[in-house]
Amino acid sequence: MIIRDMGSMIKRLAVLGSTGSIGQQTLEVVRALPDRFRIVGLAARKNVDSLTKQISEFKPRFVYYRDEETQAHLPGGEYELLSLEEIASHPEVDIVVIATSGKSGLSPTLAAVKAGKRVALANKESLVMAGHIITSEAQLHKAQILPIDSEHSAIWQCLEGETQSVARLILTASGGPFRNYSPAQLEKVTVEQALKHPAWQMGEKVTIDSATLMNKGLEVIEAHWLFNIPFENIAVVIHPQSIIHSMVEFIDGAVKAQLSYPDMRLPIQYALGYPERLANPQLPRLDWNHINQLTFEQPDFDTFLCLRLAVEAGKKGGTYPAVVCAADEVAVELFLLQRIKFTDIAYLVEQTLEQHQAITHPTLDEITMADTWAREKVLRLVAGGNP
Amino acid sequence: MIIRDMGSMIKRLAVLGSTGSIGQQTLEVVRALPDRFRIVGLAARKNVDSLTKQISEFKPRFVYYRDEETQAHLPGGEYELLSLEEIASHPEVDIVVIATSGKSGLSPTLAAVKAGKRVALANKESLVMAGHIITSEAQLHKAQILPIDSEHSAIWQCLEGETQSVARLILTASGGPFRNYSPAQLEKVTVEQALKHPAWQMGEKVTIDSATLMNKGLEVIEAHWLFNIPFENIAVVIHPQSIIHSMVEFIDGAVKAQLSYPDMRLPIQYALGYPERLANPQLPRLDWNHINQLTFEQPDFDTFLCLRLAVEAGKKGGTYPAVVCAADEVAVELFLLQRIKFTDIAYLVEQTLEQHQAITHPTLDEITMADTWAREKVLRLVAGGNP
Repeated sequence: MIIRDMGSMIKRLAVLGSTGSIGQQTLEVVRALPDRFRIVGLAARKNVDSLTKQISEFKPRFVYYRDEETQAHLPGGEYELLSLEEIASHPEVDIVVIATSGKSGLSPTLAAVKAGKRVALANKESLVMAGHIITSEAQLHKAQILPIDSEHSAIWQCLEGETQSVARLILTASGGPFRNYSPAQLEKVTVEQALKHPAWQMGEKVTIDSATLMNKGLEVIEAHWLFNIPFENIAVVIHPQSIIHSMVEFIDGAVKAQLSYPDMRLPIQYALGYPERLANPQLPRLDWNHINQLTFEQPDFDTFLCLRLAVEAGKKGGTYPAVVCAADEVAVELFLLQRIKFTDIAYLVEQTLEQHQAITHPTLDEITMADTWAREKVLRLVAGGNP
Repeated sequence: MIIRDMGSMIKRLAVLGSTGSIGQQTLEVVRALPDRFRIVGLAARKNVDSLTKQISEFKPRFVYYRDEETQAHLPGGEYELLSLEEIASHPEVDIVVIATSGKSGLSPTLAAVKAGKRVALANKESLVMAGHIITSEAQLHKAQILPIDSEHSAIWQCLEGETQSVARLILTASGGPFRNYSPAQLEKVTVEQALKHPAWQMGEKVTIDSATLMNKGLEVIEAHWLFNIPFENIAVVIHPQSIIHSMVEFIDGAVKAQLSYPDMRLPIQYALGYPERLANPQLPRLDWNHINQLTFEQPDFDTFLCLRLAVEAGKKGGTYPAVVCAADEVAVELFLLQRIKFTDIAYLVEQTLEQHQAITHPTLDEITMADTWAREKVLRLVAGGNP
């Protein structure tokens, strides 16, 4: 193939959550591959300094910043201030990278999907809370939802060329910093300890979710929606080295795995460049001189209750997954503020789920109501001295 | 897809080497999937009893047996006695399984390729000796060469859907029964010890080649031809558990691996059914409750000289690979007869290579001459008390 017009191959990106961990690594990929990607939209909700630098460097056409007062401090330039949804659905955007954390990703994800965009999705909560809505809208509007999570990217890569004969997805989990802790040890975990992930550098929310294994539970639900696989056929295996990012077992018993050092730039780049793999000398190569062993363990669903709660909520469906997300988001915030213990996160999610009156096929409004209810419930539980 | 005519989906198989290890496992796959495959040809060079049973069970249309005298002992039935080449190229055969060992696979492989067949190739020597001839004939006659080796099948599976962006092939090797032996320990290895492979049940020749790592060297050459990858981009990693059967590294640094318990029925079935994966409850599933660790080491090219010799011969090309195959085949026979020591295998191959006057782009005749020369050379070396 002779490439006649490089210009037409450049994909225009909007990065929602550009100052967060995934957002910054997305910009690193764009820096490394300037012939392939151009930033046309940037959006952040805090860290105005970082956003300012990004605007100067990438000269986007569209910018969002949550705090209207602080918007005044953004640098001058030829960009429009738009809402997240306006950027996500703008005709001049080819790929929308949803790199916001928590519930804030849901609305722009839906906007992008309804505009038929390619959506590179790092935000778990959108699919967990409203998987049935997002996937049916994506089908309707021929939008592509491409995962940026390392696990889902691994599964997606393993499915490339053969999506028909899947028996089982096997999500790997590092097990987090407290892998072999007893329940008694988990009680005493500090914020500082919980923020030290053994394998991955990530945002605070995701890091705590990795320590409770809530993250893996949400990923199971996400995998269910992304790949249309029943929960019974999604397994979780603990793999502390985080080299195998996930696996697919096929109907003949063959298993395919995707491996790499833990580096989010690889799944980001894969989603942006798909179906092409792009050479990027900045990405590390596995060095088999130094990989001595890969180990595997079964997850402890009793000690790491969040994993069980999330998977069970996923199986039950309806508004349950949204309640898990919302309750967890508030509980993690409270833990980070040192208002509750590490093990209280699971306790609060469990209590909230138990008291939830679920709706089976919720609308977006009903999901939002369940979300609001769950957040208030957690706060009321804590205010009531419980736990 | 509505399947209107199951009959048209049944593929007609000729199994050359049907009484050997791969041949018998091919028949097991056919037994398990009678709606998909039918045996129309069987060929063996020894073990008339086993062939007799196979003829009774599978009622083939075509039979080959090497020993003409013993042919009289074959059971009656409605089959023709044909040559290997006639069976391999017969219009009523869809897939030719080349499961013979050593040089005997070359001629029927070429016949099958020239007849434009799908060739399921378990025989390494054909491609090693005459890779340039077989691959160009395959292209000319639109024949498919599908590997049955577990390593090459793994690579092939990992390449499915993305053959364009390969950086490197990583062949795994169990390391054989003498993995951490010193040269002094290797000297004292007995035939009995060498025939006990830690992971795989295989024929005698392949088992000894696995113990010397010659097998892995030949596989490197085979991979070069099968996947059209330069030798510089083919690595070997020792992986004693034989769960990861090989890997592909792509240009973005992502690595894909194929995993399963060591069981040749899986790669056999994959080659026969391709591009479909077929459900076969007889094939084992990886049980992550019992896979605790996968380990990796670098191969020792000094102690396992055969590996180095084979890879170097592959890089030099011409008649060198044929000389490696031939010298090794005779040396392994001599070792099995307890005429030489285990380490003499490498020594004899090395001496033969050193004395070889290579031809750069050999014809088939020249390859056959080099083969004959190398066999005689090994015998002369041994007869001359060397080693």
